[in-house]
Amino acid sequence: MRRAVVLLSGGLDSAVTLAEAKEAGFEAHALTVRYGQRHALEVERAAEVAEALGAASHRVVAVGLAFPGGSALTDPAIPVPKGRESEAIGAGVPATYVPARNTVLLSIALALAETLGARDLFLGVNAVDYSGYPDCRPAFLAAFEDLAAVATRAGAEGARFAVHAPLLRMSKADIVRRGLALGVDLSRTLSCYDPGPDGEPCRACDACLLRARGFAEAGVPDPALALPGRRGAG
Amino acid sequence: MRRAVVLLSGGLDSAVTLAEAKEAGFEAHALTVRYGQRHALEVERAAEVAEALGAASHRVVAVGLAFPGGSALTDPAIPVPKGRESEAIGAGVPATYVPARNTVLLSIALALAETLGARDLFLGVNAVDYSGYPDCRPAFLAAFEDLAAVATRAGAEGARFAVHAPLLRMSKADIVRRGLALGVDLSRTLSCYDPGPDGEPCRACDACLLRARGFAEAGVPDPALALPGRRGAG
Repeated sequence: MRRAVVLLSGGLDSAVTLAEAKEAGFEAHALTVRYGQRHALEVERAAEVAEALGAASHRVVAVGLAFPGGSALTDPAIPVPKGRESEAIGAGVPATYVPARNTVLLSIALALAETLGARDLFLGVNAVDYSGYPDCRPAFLAAFEDLAAVATRAGAEGARFAVHAPLLRMSKADIVRRGLALGVDLSRTLSCYDPGPDGEPCRACDACLLRARGFAEAGVPDPALALPGRRGAG
Repeated sequence: MRRAVVLLSGGLDSAVTLAEAKEAGFEAHALTVRYGQRHALEVERAAEVAEALGAASHRVVAVGLAFPGGSALTDPAIPVPKGRESEAIGAGVPATYVPARNTVLLSIALALAETLGARDLFLGVNAVDYSGYPDCRPAFLAAFEDLAAVATRAGAEGARFAVHAPLLRMSKADIVRRGLALGVDLSRTLSCYDPGPDGEPCRACDACLLRARGFAEAGVPDPALALPGRRGAG
């Protein structure tokens, strides 16, 4: 069985991405990167998701990307935007952009993949709702594949690494539907950029608003909001 | 004054690279990445070098790349090759190759650079003595520049990041001479892959052998070997 490394944040998109990797027949090794996010709950949720979906392994790697002034996701001095209109969410690079984040994530995934003998990386990026993030675009994924080919021993020996982004062209409603079709327990996923201390979603950040719109368009309730004592997902 | 981020390991090559960045007129921000090397002494030496050379800042970022089976530099179960002939050192990818290491290092440097408003990265790689490492080759550096252009907000706004590798085509003797010409205190640098607990170089690993050959060809003694109570550098 071919191995793959799947970047797993604990959010909706990466959970469905892990399910897609399994569905595609890969032995899926989940990798959660802690890069200085304000909340640590994501890691707990990622571990739950990895176990529920039958990942072959789950690793957590920390890297200190919380440089002051870098991003609203890592610097408490920068507020997370709240209550933005849909048009604003898609326009321009948001304050929640973390400089070079997906480059760092994929680099660590590449290191693990080469060690495991895997040639496939999975990343839950989306170019529809998150069009403002430069490192969610197809050009970024293609450039990373080109880099991996010359950056590694495996590449120098002729291997080609593939970066799979199965959600790239899907709407959030499509992702919800696909997750349900693949049997993903969406109640475990946490999308909010700014949750309360017990994981309660703020319901106003871009991630909460996009998630709510996705569930509404898919015509299903968000199970994470209905879970008693588990007010965790945005 | 233009800012640059300089990756600084505490070894000979990165110390001279930092001096080159300063010489080129940059406000040089040093970045040391701990990626699970066997020895932590490098970080102390890097801090000394950064201060001695007048770096504008020095940051240390840790990232857990010590995946079992990955590299002799990070896995104690894999022996560091000792006593190899010059021809063997340059042939093939050595056991000290750390999967995707320079990709991870440059990614973190890119994150810091974008946060600081820097567009220039400096890396002390060398394609002469270290021809076996895939991520020391010009093709790797060019591919990373192409990636950075599409991976970042700055790139999306039209900026181009440059990866400078001023030592790329230099022999180790050239590097020694250049370091001395730039006033680098080479006694502080630690090159050994497998030093003793107090920083004593093994004098047999590839890094020690290449360094010794470089000083011999340059016709100067290695000041790190002469330092009383500081038997630190290989």
